Amino acid sequence: MTDIIEQIKAAKRAAIVLSAEDTSSKDDALLAMANALDKNRARILEANAKDMQAAEELKVQGKMSDALVKRLKVTDEKISGMIDGIEDVVELADPVGETMATLELDSDLVLYQMRCPIGLIGVIFESRPDVVPQIMSLCLKSGNAVAFKGGSEALNTIKALFDILTDAIEEAGISKEAFVLMETRDDISSILSLDKYIDLLIPRGSNEFVRYIQNNTKIPVLGHAAGICHIYVDSDADIDLALDVTLDSKIQYPAVCNAVETLLVNRSVAEDFLPEMAEDFAEAGVEMRADPDVKEILSDFSTVPAKESDWDSEYNDLIISIKMVDSVDEAIDFINTHGSHHTDAIITEDKVKQLQFTKLVDSADVFINASTRFADGYRFGKGAEVGISTNKIHARGPVGMEGLVIYKYVLVGKGQMVKDYVGNDAKKFTHTPMNRKFEL
Amino acid sequence: MTDIIEQIKAAKRAAIVLSAEDTSSKDDALLAMANALDKNRARILEANAKDMQAAEELKVQGKMSDALVKRLKVTDEKISGMIDGIEDVVELADPVGETMATLELDSDLVLYQMRCPIGLIGVIFESRPDVVPQIMSLCLKSGNAVAFKGGSEALNTIKALFDILTDAIEEAGISKEAFVLMETRDDISSILSLDKYIDLLIPRGSNEFVRYIQNNTKIPVLGHAAGICHIYVDSDADIDLALDVTLDSKIQYPAVCNAVETLLVNRSVAEDFLPEMAEDFAEAGVEMRADPDVKEILSDFSTVPAKESDWDSEYNDLIISIKMVDSVDEAIDFINTHGSHHTDAIITEDKVKQLQFTKLVDSADVFINASTRFADGYRFGKGAEVGISTNKIHARGPVGMEGLVIYKYVLVGKGQMVKDYVGNDAKKFTHTPMNRKFEL
Repeated sequence: MTDIIEQIKAAKRAAIVLSAEDTSSKDDALLAMANALDKNRARILEANAKDMQAAEELKVQGKMSDALVKRLKVTDEKISGMIDGIEDVVELADPVGETMATLELDSDLVLYQMRCPIGLIGVIFESRPDVVPQIMSLCLKSGNAVAFKGGSEALNTIKALFDILTDAIEEAGISKEAFVLMETRDDISSILSLDKYIDLLIPRGSNEFVRYIQNNTKIPVLGHAAGICHIYVDSDADIDLALDVTLDSKIQYPAVCNAVETLLVNRSVAEDFLPEMAEDFAEAGVEMRADPDVKEILSDFSTVPAKESDWDSEYNDLIISIKMVDSVDEAIDFINTHGSHHTDAIITEDKVKQLQFTKLVDSADVFINASTRFADGYRFGKGAEVGISTNKIHARGPVGMEGLVIYKYVLVGKGQMVKDYVGNDAKKFTHTPMNRKFEL
Repeated sequence: MTDIIEQIKAAKRAAIVLSAEDTSSKDDALLAMANALDKNRARILEANAKDMQAAEELKVQGKMSDALVKRLKVTDEKISGMIDGIEDVVELADPVGETMATLELDSDLVLYQMRCPIGLIGVIFESRPDVVPQIMSLCLKSGNAVAFKGGSEALNTIKALFDILTDAIEEAGISKEAFVLMETRDDISSILSLDKYIDLLIPRGSNEFVRYIQNNTKIPVLGHAAGICHIYVDSDADIDLALDVTLDSKIQYPAVCNAVETLLVNRSVAEDFLPEMAEDFAEAGVEMRADPDVKEILSDFSTVPAKESDWDSEYNDLIISIKMVDSVDEAIDFINTHGSHHTDAIITEDKVKQLQFTKLVDSADVFINASTRFADGYRFGKGAEVGISTNKIHARGPVGMEGLVIYKYVLVGKGQMVKDYVGNDAKKFTHTPMNRKFEL
């Protein structure tokens, strides 16, 4: 642990240097990273084979889930994906040094709000070795240091990737001290207690994993522990559109956080909408858990009675809970009560209800007549995704590089003193916004 | 406690309604608040007299500090200040509903990033009853609910202010359920444990008070626990300017977080600068705690040898620690190691060193040739200050209403499905930024 603390302290110091690297140096290092992955495909696959062998044995013993084993597997195609991902980050604009606002406080006293990196980012993940190149490239471009703590099941793969990437960074002329891999077999508490050094934690793993992290650290956590997404089909919905969007939201990729879990249907369109919807669901193999009113309308279909717990469940599977409501107000209240503030959609042609839903649903993503599955960094045009956040501060919804930066205020004066701006003959502040980039 | 939880839940629900109130309704309520304070001056002063009587007794018994008693006192002039503060908030732009960015994902599929309130803000404070009108007005304008937890020493005053203000809000047509006063005599743990409901905590009190809160809650805390500010006088400093700015930074108001505590002096100007500076300090009654090199140069003056702990001390008093350094690099490293990332200044005419200091000092406020005392929401043109933050996420430095808002993404479509954007014949995203405000 002492050794890790020393490495973390060194990373914190290196973060300062990294924060001042210029864009072309960082882009050169990114290209070197991509190149190094390409040259070391065999080494990565070999390391991964070791992890996979151990994982398969654990799977047979029932000690590791199939999903986790699948996410652990690295293929040549996946390496190409990592390389493409790094090259995408090269194309992203460098946020560091951007002048966000300029305000003249008085003549020759100008205040600049300047974008800068956060500092040291902690990343905790299960399986998924591709988290290493993805987050390392995003942090490098945004000038942040990173401490990685991966699951022991992926240690060989992670270590190979980490060594290849950091060697490439160093050869490109940027200190690799800014990047730390916590190899210790200690449990994750070793990183969760580093609130003195780590400025922000990004967890990647199951809901339980994220919730555990949120509940056991004082470091701010960027992420979400649940994705209980809703669709409300309103009395003024276009029924065909509602059928299409709801089916897409449920079945296009049911295992992910932005798939719909609960369908709310306005009573006045229930008879028109529900039987057709149920036909689509039945055909796609979706289990329907219905409240009594919905169950009655769907008496010709196989449905399961919804329990109270269904309204608070994220299935991540071909299951949907369905409830009848009497108004958009009831739908909004239900979503705010039972949802996870992630992504919720209304299907209606009525603009007043569209606006009401938009304003009153307290979720990161509020959609009108579109599939909940669009809630994603890539689809939102961010180029690369740090994660999806349901936090109420800093960054919300799909988060790109903007989640890895903050700002500092730079005040440039000519010897001004506060004593001249107080009292009877006080000089007055002009507080005039200026259209000027930072310049000395 | 059960009763408080019910009130907090009600406030959380009321926050949703408040988030959608229009600007003119909120401004009407603000004006009603200001008017109500003016009409109820006697009632406020009477309540405060009760608190003051108890406080004076505690002071005599040595159970309450003079500073705390002073901050508790409300005068007619202070009430006028509260009224002016509320009227200032009326003048501030309403951030809610602002379109921050618009992106066309595809034709008829437009993504809006919309500014919105955070939700429920918790405010914990010692003495200082003026926190109630100040934070209530800022939260009302930004559409946030608030739960207040004040010190028991100010309970009569706080309760009078709270009742007068919330009655005025209700009469103006906005539900007062969004505002909660936790009157319970429980310790502050009663509010610190409400992380399920409270989205952000704002503490107002001593450094120890803020540090206790930061260490004992899972709710994000906006603030700072220390203000160890530095001035570095460089080899290329204008000596007269350095003398003026340093004196102002120390003595203009030494009790506050943005006063300078440590002075770093480049060896090459030490002989020129330090004796004159020491003369000014001596005249102003400032105690100098000097390292051996500084002490030698100041052998004609009364100085105290600096101990290691002096470099990590916030005096909030007429005391300054002084250290010799050999370069701007050493100064930067010292500030990043011993500072509190609050406000630090360089005095130099050299633009290269100005830029280096600006980039590499990891503080919320980095000043060039200006007094550290300018680090303040009012001076920074924010109209009203929520607090000064040394956080590395969300909001940093002096924080105005921007610290009380976040955003949501609103996606407006015409029935688009994700399945059409994947696979071989995938539709392509246009991802075209648009210059368009949110409109349905």
